[in-house]
Amino acid sequence: MTHTSHTAHVSDAQRRVEEDLLDRVVASFDSCENPRLKLLMQSLTVHLHEFIRDVRLTEDEWNQAIDFLTRVGHITDDKRQEFVLLSDTLGASMQTIAVNNEAYEDATEATVFGPFFVDDAPEVSHGGDIAGGAHGQPAWVEGTVTDTDGNPVPNARIEVWECDEDGFYDVQYADNRMAGRAYLHTDDQGTYRFWGLTPVPYPIPHDGPVGQMLQAVGRSPVRAAHLHFMVTASGFRTLVTHIFVDGDPQLDIGDSVFGVKDSLIKAFEQQPAGTPTPDGRDVSEIADGTWARTRFDIVLAPAKTKTT
Amino acid sequence: MTHTSHTAHVSDAQRRVEEDLLDRVVASFDSCENPRLKLLMQSLTVHLHEFIRDVRLTEDEWNQAIDFLTRVGHITDDKRQEFVLLSDTLGASMQTIAVNNEAYEDATEATVFGPFFVDDAPEVSHGGDIAGGAHGQPAWVEGTVTDTDGNPVPNARIEVWECDEDGFYDVQYADNRMAGRAYLHTDDQGTYRFWGLTPVPYPIPHDGPVGQMLQAVGRSPVRAAHLHFMVTASGFRTLVTHIFVDGDPQLDIGDSVFGVKDSLIKAFEQQPAGTPTPDGRDVSEIADGTWARTRFDIVLAPAKTKTT
Repeated sequence: MTHTSHTAHVSDAQRRVEEDLLDRVVASFDSCENPRLKLLMQSLTVHLHEFIRDVRLTEDEWNQAIDFLTRVGHITDDKRQEFVLLSDTLGASMQTIAVNNEAYEDATEATVFGPFFVDDAPEVSHGGDIAGGAHGQPAWVEGTVTDTDGNPVPNARIEVWECDEDGFYDVQYADNRMAGRAYLHTDDQGTYRFWGLTPVPYPIPHDGPVGQMLQAVGRSPVRAAHLHFMVTASGFRTLVTHIFVDGDPQLDIGDSVFGVKDSLIKAFEQQPAGTPTPDGRDVSEIADGTWARTRFDIVLAPAKTKTT
Repeated sequence: MTHTSHTAHVSDAQRRVEEDLLDRVVASFDSCENPRLKLLMQSLTVHLHEFIRDVRLTEDEWNQAIDFLTRVGHITDDKRQEFVLLSDTLGASMQTIAVNNEAYEDATEATVFGPFFVDDAPEVSHGGDIAGGAHGQPAWVEGTVTDTDGNPVPNARIEVWECDEDGFYDVQYADNRMAGRAYLHTDDQGTYRFWGLTPVPYPIPHDGPVGQMLQAVGRSPVRAAHLHFMVTASGFRTLVTHIFVDGDPQLDIGDSVFGVKDSLIKAFEQQPAGTPTPDGRDVSEIADGTWARTRFDIVLAPAKTKTT
């Protein structure tokens, strides 16, 4: 932990003033009738005050923080959620996911949901194309869904979504067309296969206050290339995850929202032009005829697992 | 401290996952070229993640937090600063003031600035009336400004502002008139005197998300009755403070922004109708002829004090 407390240099009298104040604020929530809300507010208060005291926050910095939050609030609308970007770039979203998706045996790990999922994506059949007109190199994606004992999970619903070769999701297009997303179900053997696009890195929206913050601290706004999955099946914990692309240089630079886990990095094997496709699809007119293939075997944890 | 950590029940493997993530986020700020900004962001990250981990924040609670902050942002405009209210009601404003205004010998203590100061208040002469048409019981306020050795501080600028008997500051009036605020300077003996209004308790604006939070946790939005002071003099630390009214029942209920310090509670001695005023002012037509008087002797700390 690189974190250093600065309160060590504070006089005893000053420390008492600060702790008395903190105690009064914590006590102000004592009569909250919702015990969970009381715990949340009291813990938030303690950590917020400890931050202020540790860094000896100046009044000018406090003003800048109020101004920053105000700008985050004002750029946020129905299409743009800057508070989610802020949570993502501080790793708070990923930590919340970590806390709520504890590792269970060899079940596939979860990662951030992101802001680009939509509810009413089209269904595709096995081997169908989710691109829906989005441009990019075709990628054949296949795998199985099993439980932690290796038994296949038939009829699991798999939602997949991703950006196009320019780094844009369909919801970022000017028109309302849907592209780069679909759902399908596993078959009786728990297997699935579809055509997607080889993922590419793209920046999170960085023309607002969160982008300014990233620039001020010298951080890249770019997300490592990834393909989103959400897998639901009766009796299993819902899995929200991505797969990442082995060899993507952004994996070394760092994913701007800290979503990468080693177990989720997959080889997207590049196929030279002319290589026959698994289902006979003719891809010669796209991406100079090249394509990629990857495998993602998914292991679902049972619903309501206890890990402690 | 009533704060309890819940991470004690977490498995070692899970703890490692959470700490590895935190370490990665902290390290993402390592190349920040501004050492102060780096410290602020890394400490903020540590405390934010510790909060999420301590309370085991659920994904639903995270969504509610994003929604709450969005609503705070959207109600904030040029006239309404809900983020300041949030900071105030969490005691974060007062803690920032505590950190930046360490006690110095017997210098008068600071408290919250609040959102109601304006720059261009009128000057009043000694014994002048700051009410400017605001309704309320007249209160004679007098005192001295000295340094910590007891020497008078002549020509100190004293800004004072307060709400009317209905709990409204002039900036909350529909018209643009100025009332309940003024400035004056201490005389050669460091003394000052003016007519103000006996302060009354009033709620902070509580028709927005912060008001809903206070209601959900069973807290009063009401501020203890107070009269604002800001005192500036060359060679001295600027003092931003209030005086509170001894006997105000809100002092027991609790000031909604935690601004009260015992040393700032002053007797406002009630004077029956007909009691002669210090300067012969006829107050028989106001507040049934009653008035109050109080004394606030102010001690300024030297500029740039070191207390550690």
